Amino acid sequence: MRADAKKNYDQVLAVAAEVVAEQGADASLRDIARRAEVGLGTLYRHFPTREALLEVLLRTTMDELTRKATDIEATCAPDEALLTWSRLAVAFTHTFRGVVDLMATAMDDENSALHASCTKVRADGARLLLRAQDAGLARKDIDGADLLSLIAALGWLNDQPSFAPRAAHLFDVIADALLIAKPHSP
Amino acid sequence: MRADAKKNYDQVLAVAAEVVAEQGADASLRDIARRAEVGLGTLYRHFPTREALLEVLLRTTMDELTRKATDIEATCAPDEALLTWSRLAVAFTHTFRGVVDLMATAMDDENSALHASCTKVRADGARLLLRAQDAGLARKDIDGADLLSLIAALGWLNDQPSFAPRAAHLFDVIADALLIAKPHSP
Repeated sequence: MRADAKKNYDQVLAVAAEVVAEQGADASLRDIARRAEVGLGTLYRHFPTREALLEVLLRTTMDELTRKATDIEATCAPDEALLTWSRLAVAFTHTFRGVVDLMATAMDDENSALHASCTKVRADGARLLLRAQDAGLARKDIDGADLLSLIAALGWLNDQPSFAPRAAHLFDVIADALLIAKPHSP
Repeated sequence: MRADAKKNYDQVLAVAAEVVAEQGADASLRDIARRAEVGLGTLYRHFPTREALLEVLLRTTMDELTRKATDIEATCAPDEALLTWSRLAVAFTHTFRGVVDLMATAMDDENSALHASCTKVRADGARLLLRAQDAGLARKDIDGADLLSLIAALGWLNDQPSFAPRAAHLFDVIADALLIAKPHSP
């Protein structure tokens, strides 16, 4: 990609992140082009479809999450690492309203362009979970798929105006269910 | 309502329950009328809009859930009652695909025709939760709104093909988080 094309590409992506955070997955591409100060044709040249744009956005964010998983694993105790990463994963689902539904679909569809990234995120979670289980710090009857389901469910709660206020507290409640040796007081 | 009109009404409602269980909230009203062997005009006379039909369907099912809450409270120990009712409440969200989203919206909208029924279901859950808390059998840092959020989240998981297989197990994991004195083995 030529330098000016790359600049346009990065600019569109940065603006797209803002606009979909505001408007959700069905954000106006015209708005994105206008705010990125490129023509709609330029936007479509880089991202032929809305899905292509969202896909690159999510992949970028998931790759960051994967990098952080490695950092967290290297620096935190197994139980703390599991919680810290899970919290980041829930936060990732708030990239924009509708991410959770997109991910739920991609997880199940091997042909989805997001499938590989989803699988990578699930593997990160599974690895951190196993590390905590091996240290005797997490219950052993759940696996990476369970963990991802819980993260998705918490992400979904946060997308619902009537449930969102409980999401942070329920993260802690569910964390208590996953971790061992941190009994809650009655 | 005249006897034949009542018969039509009940017939439409019974068929609607089947069709929306298959097709979801955007089920074809034409299909419902055909399978109920009434004209589309008759269906619209009883249920002027799709929302009116879904609302009556859900209200009927929620009223049943409320009746069961009373039965369960009268016959089960506090912790068992809480779990049994929660399981029924999650099952209710599977009346058809999309119920959870409808409820999440209705819960937050006082003008929704479903708001009162949602509030009643939440109150049932809150009462059973409080009973278990008073008996020292449930953690005290959650309330009826938390319980309903967890039920909705489990209902949502069951609506996602990629997460549905974990939903039953995750119910048990979350139940462990709510109840006291049932420590899980590592």
